[in-house]
Amino acid sequence: MIKTGFLGPKGTFSQEAMIVYTKGGSEYTGIDYNTMTDLIAAVSKDEIDEAVVPIENSLEGAVSVTLDMLATEPDIKIKAEVIIPISQNLLAKRGTQFKNIKYILSHPQAIGQCRKYIDSNFPDAMIKYLYSTAEAAKEVAEGNGDMAAVGSKAAAGVYDLEILQESIQDNNNNLTRFIVISKKEAPKSRKSKTSIVFSTENKPGSLYRILDIFSLWDINMTRIESRPAKNKLGRYIFFVDIEGHVEDEDVRDALTMVKRKTSFYKFLGSYPEFERQM
Amino acid sequence: MIKTGFLGPKGTFSQEAMIVYTKGGSEYTGIDYNTMTDLIAAVSKDEIDEAVVPIENSLEGAVSVTLDMLATEPDIKIKAEVIIPISQNLLAKRGTQFKNIKYILSHPQAIGQCRKYIDSNFPDAMIKYLYSTAEAAKEVAEGNGDMAAVGSKAAAGVYDLEILQESIQDNNNNLTRFIVISKKEAPKSRKSKTSIVFSTENKPGSLYRILDIFSLWDINMTRIESRPAKNKLGRYIFFVDIEGHVEDEDVRDALTMVKRKTSFYKFLGSYPEFERQM
Repeated sequence: MIKTGFLGPKGTFSQEAMIVYTKGGSEYTGIDYNTMTDLIAAVSKDEIDEAVVPIENSLEGAVSVTLDMLATEPDIKIKAEVIIPISQNLLAKRGTQFKNIKYILSHPQAIGQCRKYIDSNFPDAMIKYLYSTAEAAKEVAEGNGDMAAVGSKAAAGVYDLEILQESIQDNNNNLTRFIVISKKEAPKSRKSKTSIVFSTENKPGSLYRILDIFSLWDINMTRIESRPAKNKLGRYIFFVDIEGHVEDEDVRDALTMVKRKTSFYKFLGSYPEFERQM
Repeated sequence: MIKTGFLGPKGTFSQEAMIVYTKGGSEYTGIDYNTMTDLIAAVSKDEIDEAVVPIENSLEGAVSVTLDMLATEPDIKIKAEVIIPISQNLLAKRGTQFKNIKYILSHPQAIGQCRKYIDSNFPDAMIKYLYSTAEAAKEVAEGNGDMAAVGSKAAAGVYDLEILQESIQDNNNNLTRFIVISKKEAPKSRKSKTSIVFSTENKPGSLYRILDIFSLWDINMTRIESRPAKNKLGRYIFFVDIEGHVEDEDVRDALTMVKRKTSFYKFLGSYPEFERQM
C-alpha cells in the first residue's frame, strides 16, 4: 500500500491531480493534509510515502511555497509530474440569487484566474482570500446565502453547493503542473526531465556563466524561475528544469560543472516527463 | 500639484513607500485606491500623475499582479524605485487576550513573512487571507475579539488597534521594493537602472542567447524574473533589470539587439537607483 498525501480538504485540484497520478490504482491510499507545512512534514517523517503538490499554473505562475520547500527540505526529491486542466466554477448554497452575492471567496490564484469575470459580474463584491478553493467552498456552505466560492466541481459535490456558473476562468489555457515529492527517486524512464536549484556567486554575469554550461553540453533548459535568497534584497536562487536524466552522461557532466560553479546547489530529481492523455 | 496614488486603505506599506518617495513634499497629494486594477486604471486615464506599487519583497519574492500589469499596459513606464524595511506586528482590538485568538488575518505575503511565528504561537488558528494588511486590520477592528491582524504599526493607528506584539516577522532582512509608475519618464540621473520585459522564441537556448547580448556589451544584469506567457504552459516572459540608462550608448545598442532577437519586447523605463538613507 502506497500512502499519497495531498493538500486537502477533499475537493481541491490537488486531489484531482493525485487521482490522475495514481490512475485510481487500488494500491494507493489518498490522505489529505490541511496545510502545505503539514503535508511536507508528513513526507519528512515517513508518515506518508509521497505527496502531490502544485508547482506552477499557466496563468498565475509559480507556487512560491512549493519552490521554497524544495530548496530547503534536505531529503525531498521530485519523482513525477502531473499536468491537469483547471476549470473554475461559481459555487453557492442552493437557491442563492446572483444579485444577493456580496462576498466572493477563494484561493488567491483562483481569484486571479477569474479576475475579468468577477470584475464585470460582481464589481462591488468583497473578495476574501482563503487557503484553498475547497476551504472557500466549505465557508460558503456554512454561510448565509450572500457568498459564492470560486472552485472545482468536485468541491460543489463535497460541500453540497449549487454550480451557479460553469467554467468562469478568463482564459481556457489554464493548466496546473503538480509534482510528486518523495524520499525515493523515480526509476529511469524513456523521456526524462531533471530539476535543480542553485544560487550563483554575487558578481556580474554569474547566471550567464551557468546557462553557458548547458549551452556547451547542448542541454535544453525548459524552465528557469527565480526566488529570493532571503538573506538580502537583490540576491536570488534559481530553479532550472532541463531535458534528460542525471544518469545520461551529458547531463551528469554538465551538472557536475554547475555544482562546481555555484555557491549553493541541490539536485531535485530526474523524473518522467508527463504525457497528456488526449 | 502632483497626484500620487497608492494601494489603500490608509495604513498600508504602499502609503509608507509613497511618503518615502515624496519625502513628505507639499507639492504631492496622496490618493488611495482599493485595488491594483483601479490604481493602474487611474494612471492610464490621467486621473493621477503616478502610482506607487510593490514589485518585490526580499522574502516572498515578486508581486505577480504588478509584473503582469507592466507587461500589458502600453503607456506605463517606471520612473523611480523605493525600498523600505517591512516590520510586521500582531494587532488586535484593545483588551484581546492571546489565548482567545482563533483567527489571524492578513495579506498572503505578510502571513508568509511571519509563518514561523504564527505556527509556533498559534498552531490552531485559522488563517484568513485578505487583499491588504490594512484590510485585515479593518476587519479585526470590526470583529468580536477573537481575531488578530498581521500588519504595520500605521494600520494599528488608523484602526485604533492594540499592538499585541511588535516585529513578528521570521527574518529581519525583510525589505520591499516599490516602483513608481507614470506615463512620464524620469530625467537621467547619476546612477540608473533600466527594466525591460521580453519573450524569447520557442527554441532551445533562446534565453541564453539574450543573456549573451548583455555579456557581449559588458552590461550587468541585476535581476531576472519569469512569468507565464499565459498562452501555453511552459512558455514564459522574462523581466530583466540591468545597470545603466537607455541613453548610455552601450545600453542603447544592447537593447536594440535584444529587441531584434525577441518575439515580444517592451522597454519599461530607465530610472534612478534607490539609495538608502542610513
